[in-house]
Amino acid sequence: MSVTMDAIVSLAKRRGLIFQSSEIYGGLASTWDYGPLGVELKRNVKEAWWRAMVYERDDIEGLDAAILMHPDAWIASGHVASFSDPLVDCKGCRRRFREDHLPAFTGVLLKPADEAVAAITLILPAENFDDAMKKVKQTKEWSSQPKGFWTAEQLPPEMVKAVCPECGGELTPPRAFNLMFQTHVGPVQDSAAVVYLRPETAQGIFVNFDNVSTTMRRKLPFGIAQIGKSFRNEITPGNFIFRTREFEQMELEFFCKPGDKCREGERTDMDWWEHWKEQRHAWYLRYGIRAEKLRMRDHASDELAHYAKGCVDVEYEFPIGWSELEGIANRTNYDLTQHMTHSKKDLRYFDQELNEHYIPYVIEPSAGADRGTLAFLCDAFREEAVEGKEPRKLLSLHYALAPIKCAVFPLLKNRPELVEKARKLARDLKPHFYTVYDDTAAIGKLYRRQDEIGTPFCVTVDVDTMTDGQVTLRNRDTMTQERIPIEKVGDVVGGALKDALKF
Amino acid sequence: MSVTMDAIVSLAKRRGLIFQSSEIYGGLASTWDYGPLGVELKRNVKEAWWRAMVYERDDIEGLDAAILMHPDAWIASGHVASFSDPLVDCKGCRRRFREDHLPAFTGVLLKPADEAVAAITLILPAENFDDAMKKVKQTKEWSSQPKGFWTAEQLPPEMVKAVCPECGGELTPPRAFNLMFQTHVGPVQDSAAVVYLRPETAQGIFVNFDNVSTTMRRKLPFGIAQIGKSFRNEITPGNFIFRTREFEQMELEFFCKPGDKCREGERTDMDWWEHWKEQRHAWYLRYGIRAEKLRMRDHASDELAHYAKGCVDVEYEFPIGWSELEGIANRTNYDLTQHMTHSKKDLRYFDQELNEHYIPYVIEPSAGADRGTLAFLCDAFREEAVEGKEPRKLLSLHYALAPIKCAVFPLLKNRPELVEKARKLARDLKPHFYTVYDDTAAIGKLYRRQDEIGTPFCVTVDVDTMTDGQVTLRNRDTMTQERIPIEKVGDVVGGALKDALKF
Repeated sequence: MSVTMDAIVSLAKRRGLIFQSSEIYGGLASTWDYGPLGVELKRNVKEAWWRAMVYERDDIEGLDAAILMHPDAWIASGHVASFSDPLVDCKGCRRRFREDHLPAFTGVLLKPADEAVAAITLILPAENFDDAMKKVKQTKEWSSQPKGFWTAEQLPPEMVKAVCPECGGELTPPRAFNLMFQTHVGPVQDSAAVVYLRPETAQGIFVNFDNVSTTMRRKLPFGIAQIGKSFRNEITPGNFIFRTREFEQMELEFFCKPGDKCREGERTDMDWWEHWKEQRHAWYLRYGIRAEKLRMRDHASDELAHYAKGCVDVEYEFPIGWSELEGIANRTNYDLTQHMTHSKKDLRYFDQELNEHYIPYVIEPSAGADRGTLAFLCDAFREEAVEGKEPRKLLSLHYALAPIKCAVFPLLKNRPELVEKARKLARDLKPHFYTVYDDTAAIGKLYRRQDEIGTPFCVTVDVDTMTDGQVTLRNRDTMTQERIPIEKVGDVVGGALKDALKF
Repeated sequence: MSVTMDAIVSLAKRRGLIFQSSEIYGGLASTWDYGPLGVELKRNVKEAWWRAMVYERDDIEGLDAAILMHPDAWIASGHVASFSDPLVDCKGCRRRFREDHLPAFTGVLLKPADEAVAAITLILPAENFDDAMKKVKQTKEWSSQPKGFWTAEQLPPEMVKAVCPECGGELTPPRAFNLMFQTHVGPVQDSAAVVYLRPETAQGIFVNFDNVSTTMRRKLPFGIAQIGKSFRNEITPGNFIFRTREFEQMELEFFCKPGDKCREGERTDMDWWEHWKEQRHAWYLRYGIRAEKLRMRDHASDELAHYAKGCVDVEYEFPIGWSELEGIANRTNYDLTQHMTHSKKDLRYFDQELNEHYIPYVIEPSAGADRGTLAFLCDAFREEAVEGKEPRKLLSLHYALAPIKCAVFPLLKNRPELVEKARKLARDLKPHFYTVYDDTAAIGKLYRRQDEIGTPFCVTVDVDTMTDGQVTLRNRDTMTQERIPIEKVGDVVGGALKDALKF
């Protein structure tokens, strides 16, 4: 079954997972707020990452660097000079596009209406070509009869003029638009006061490399892990929480010996790169992503940054198609070298065994917390036939990711002693795992409601409970029900949640 | 014993708790990065708050709204018009001050050197008065013999001229300086594209009030809790992480019935205000703040915002003196009314019992995560005499807040079988609670090292362990040591950590 993005957006809004930001003011483009269930889901995704990085390994330290950094750090990293997208403007409708995101084009030969010059080939979008032609004709700038058709590749560039896919108007030549948000610290808005909202968390790690390795007495290899917000002034954000201007990253910088410093049999930087590719792929599987929805895509050599020795994307098959979840790069010693040059601080590592200073290499698995959350949501979404009943909607989330772990219902809401017992049970369980109480519908509907938001366990207090002290425990995935003593619920559900973390 | 801020800053830097941000570039003023131990401490503080709000109560929902909001939200909230500080500039040295933060003044009658007019009373800082006089004389603008001394209150304002406490230069009249950081969304930097970095998380809650109450089927009273970054372009930040331009808030907006809608015996807004004052005071005590270091300070009526029915600050006695940790205000229906007016959306609550629409009142306990972290650090810091040994430095943090819960050492690092057993134990414990392994010093020094960062438990593997299977478990606070079976360490330490959460 394939899920549509619309179904996910609708579920997210309806059930309090994700709302449009500032919705009562018409929203702020491509900005989203996590509602009561969304904040738990995203917290759980981040916690699962932190657990795998910081708590389950002994070679990684955590970090939480500020969003505002010294502007020189972004000169050193190369972001001030070249963290930009090619931006084109439509001279007609004033819309803006990323040149590399413009749709596929077909050429059509037209003559400018007001000029006696030779005809010029306009490049119109291949999709909805007829509409585009109609719009071009309406601009009055071009004589109206097409003289032939070509693809963009068949024509010399100087004859070619791309037009706006929205209105057919003329586009400006591309200009580099820097994606860093800029603001000013202190009351004077001059260039000395400019700071940037960090476009990635990685540089906060590099500038702290020496602080962390010294205070924590770390030897290579070791990593520094960080979760935090980053900001990119994307020209064309979109696809729900997949690409947003404000987003959260989960980044690891794993510092290791360059291969040429390694003894025979010692792990080289490329070995660690392989290690992290395996680890990160396994992490998504461990938390429930189906193997057939996940793939590793090696960057072609012309996609690689000049300093990178290799990069692979972990891709998930979203409703919008295969798209990047995470990039895993061997960044060599590029970043530390840059910061060393610009800060004039010695960031070399002293290798006691080799009795030698060198700049460590770094492997960077860089994941998006928001698009990770989206992938887990899409992957868990099911509509299942149920024998003799209506099909059910289900979020089959890994127990550790489910926002609510347990829901408690009284079978009859007009029986105060059942209500009281159920409420008390929910209250007692809540500090141990997120539990809710609900009595606002009949029991069948209450089960469906919890299935739809992925709650692994439901507990029902009924009339028999008052005499035999047992309750009904229902499992989300199997829909099986069993009677257990009420005082065992905490252990049974708690135990199942704990078991789910084993790997 | 009183702790100095210097001692805290030094500990924080030396032991990997908190580093100056972008330190290798000379730092970014008043911006700080949390190192490996700091990130755990701050995570634990935030987790303790979230636990008390969202997990231990059944009347609160969580939220995680974006930092970037629709700019109209800040017009509605009043921040665009009046979230400002009175800024004065020194015409001499160009330094900037908050007028209301200028030090206490003493007047001194001086005659302007270049003018034949009557003498003018300069207001100089009372602290370091002589230095200030010297600086004033050096400016050459004033004749040099003081004619008398007054306090600022004793003089008519038109005769008074405050001078720069740094250089003695003339100060400009105060102007309102808006504290919101401003940036632009999209490629055009015009006014239509202006957005602000939120100066508080509260408004993200108000604009989502309707979304949350609808999707979660909530009836009054209920609250919405949020933790997240906020930004204020403070003129005079400082005092380590006490006042920073980028900071993290933990805010609850608790929506309730206005008192005049309440039946006899029903909790009014003022009752809920009292409830939250008690709850929040108790929370700090629960996590270890000493009662004598905590006080509740009621705002005087002239300190209150015009719409507030009451506000109290929870204050802690920091090394810099009594300062605000948290404010707890009864904000009435001001914020929802403002958003209703500006967004034209109906944000009233329908009360089924009364069969009536009204705008809820809101109680707001608003705490700072960074200054909370600082208070817990300051409060836990001890230097203790130890009989027959050097005094020890100790962070007596609540178990739930301690960055590292358990440290494992081999008694002898040159015995591979001890090292291996200790390493394995640390690895096995780590996924259950944060555990580290260390063998880089003698055992006494290792204990001291863990005391200084607040680790509640240390476990030592010695030669006997190899035959009797027992290890030494040492408690941070009592320094008592007991032998327990190695396979019991997880349960004993885990149990103690769990018990510490009971209340």
